[in-house]
Amino acid sequence: KHITVLPGDGIGPEVTAEAQKLLEEVAVQFGHTFEFTAAHIGGAAIDAEGTPLPEQTVARCKASDAVLLGAVGAPKYDRGPASGRPEAGLLGLRKALDVFANLRPITVFPPLAAASPLKDEVLTNVDFVIVRELTGGLYFGTPRERIQTDHGLEVVDTLRYSEQEIERILRLGYQIAQQRGKRLTSVDKANVLESSRVWRETAERLHAEYPDVELNHLLVDNAAMQIVKDPGQFDVIVTENLFGDILSDEGAMITGSIGMLPSASLGAGGPGLYEPVHGSAPDIAGKGIANPLASFLSAAMMLRHSFGMFAEADAVEQAVQQVLADGLRTADIAGPGDTPLSTAEMGEAVR
Amino acid sequence: KHITVLPGDGIGPEVTAEAQKLLEEVAVQFGHTFEFTAAHIGGAAIDAEGTPLPEQTVARCKASDAVLLGAVGAPKYDRGPASGRPEAGLLGLRKALDVFANLRPITVFPPLAAASPLKDEVLTNVDFVIVRELTGGLYFGTPRERIQTDHGLEVVDTLRYSEQEIERILRLGYQIAQQRGKRLTSVDKANVLESSRVWRETAERLHAEYPDVELNHLLVDNAAMQIVKDPGQFDVIVTENLFGDILSDEGAMITGSIGMLPSASLGAGGPGLYEPVHGSAPDIAGKGIANPLASFLSAAMMLRHSFGMFAEADAVEQAVQQVLADGLRTADIAGPGDTPLSTAEMGEAVR
Ligand SMILES: CC(C)[C@H](C(=O)O)[C@@H](O)C(=O)O
Ligand SMILES: CC(C)[C@H](C(=O)O)[C@@H](O)C(=O)O
Repeated sequence: KHITVLPGDGIGPEVTAEAQKLLEEVAVQFGHTFEFTAAHIGGAAIDAEGTPLPEQTVARCKASDAVLLGAVGAPKYDRGPASGRPEAGLLGLRKALDVFANLRPITVFPPLAAASPLKDEVLTNVDFVIVRELTGGLYFGTPRERIQTDHGLEVVDTLRYSEQEIERILRLGYQIAQQRGKRLTSVDKANVLESSRVWRETAERLHAEYPDVELNHLLVDNAAMQIVKDPGQFDVIVTENLFGDILSDEGAMITGSIGMLPSASLGAGGPGLYEPVHGSAPDIAGKGIANPLASFLSAAMMLRHSFGMFAEADAVEQAVQQVLADGLRTADIAGPGDTPLSTAEMGEAVR
Repeated sequence: KHITVLPGDGIGPEVTAEAQKLLEEVAVQFGHTFEFTAAHIGGAAIDAEGTPLPEQTVARCKASDAVLLGAVGAPKYDRGPASGRPEAGLLGLRKALDVFANLRPITVFPPLAAASPLKDEVLTNVDFVIVRELTGGLYFGTPRERIQTDHGLEVVDTLRYSEQEIERILRLGYQIAQQRGKRLTSVDKANVLESSRVWRETAERLHAEYPDVELNHLLVDNAAMQIVKDPGQFDVIVTENLFGDILSDEGAMITGSIGMLPSASLGAGGPGLYEPVHGSAPDIAGKGIANPLASFLSAAMMLRHSFGMFAEADAVEQAVQQVLADGLRTADIAGPGDTPLSTAEMGEAVR
């Protein structure tokens, strides 16, 4: 298997280096051959090649079986024009790979539950997946521009979806629900948005093809409430790009372990893109103290979703559970009395 | 003062009837004259007059000093076309009255804090206001339509703002911050949306006029996390319409008392629109058990913001605090062992 590694910015290089070592260990233990090629993205790509998404990076990713990303984003570029920012590299890569579905598992790690802002009893049974549409909607719709009118400046962004884009993400939502608890919650704002009404109608229409799945609809404002009030109620949530951005970060926060959560961005057959949910964390970059576990769990998702290596994925996830059960902690998840491990020490423990 | 009462749907008529009685009592005790006129909105207006926002309703509201709304929304209309739904009445009224700013105070009622899903220590010092833009953005932008293309159906909504709309809501955010803790958090998605970049630039530019206010920016996904993680950090949050819809409901939920929270929608001089945050709650409508306290606190906001009656507003708010301190509860906020009061009994207690 060919894996393109995009270390990116901040703590990205530190955590992906450990994830690569972990995958190399998996290859040894299970008798696989993984080949790794590195490429630039984000601020690191701007520094090295003058653009957040070099053509060579896209070409390498497309030629590989899966992509492992660290993190993208560097404060020094925040003031520049949009197209030249690190984030533009990530958005461009999602589009180039056509990874239209972002899977964000929201799970609680029992040894870390104390770090959650939610009460223990609210956190029971929390185990759901948010399936976020990733290549449409306000993120990519045009026109997106400033317009000088007779009455002054106006600015426009466009929430645009084709019915086919809505269909494919909803189908994936149904399919993932079929593999899990068979309950799909479709989140929209159908009382205001026309796109949400098409979304809701499409969800209803497709339901006939997935009769074993229970479908219900939630308005996005209500969903934002329910995720705090009773997150244990969900099995699979499917929603459009921007709603998914907001709700999946809210969902990550309730677990208390945002530094632990992985994500997978999948397309229709091309390479998947795997990245931790945490960002580039510039404040702790370069210190060797970042938590690599989210990157490890992203690698596990790669093993499972891109390579069909289920035992290997399970082994990685169990190793992560084991180090937590053994009381090993990086600084971000350390409690009073814990001696924090470095990134490398945590990597070695999991391997 | 002329007050238009729009009872609306579900529990709306029950809670506004009590709020009107409370305002009548305020008039007696403080020597004012309030005149009340009722009008239809939402599902009730569809039933009575065939449209969710009759012209007469708009005319009456415009001719009055303030508007007290109950709730809008009835399941039986959910399937109909958008323009004929109860919610269209509310959206139309906001636009007709040009109430461009929705104020949502997020406060914790100490006797009710146990109902919050958040841990006690996370809930300390929670006292902030979300200032939501209410008449622009995706809610009203055009085009909003389905388009048949060569490749099938497409659907479009438009996030449109004029610079002037962005300016006036940001100014209000600054002004409210000046009257409170002098800290303004502007929420946007400037790493993706052009409208958010104009929003952020405008916030920066106006800052020169409000140098005593501390300004910081938060991306909306991060804001959704911070509201759960550390809600005590906020003083005033200002944001665009849809972000404000999502975040203010999330903010309401963390208090554990969504049935208690009021809102004010204000324009540039015309009558303000006051309504509880809770919806029409069709499941308990007509039973006389709805909690009228959010409607009372909305009436208090009316006294303060539309009439400048500060002592009167304080008196209402203190009365609400007092009944809670006395252990009086409607069913929605009753704990084990409490004997729930009816809507009317709670109204009488507060009067
Ligand atoms: C960096 C940013 C553009 C991105 C997004 O909004 O999609 C991030 O928040 C995410 O969720 O991956
Ligand atoms: C009923 C609906 C259209 C409305 C909105 O989204 O503005 C409601 O959620 C609110 O926040 O007042």
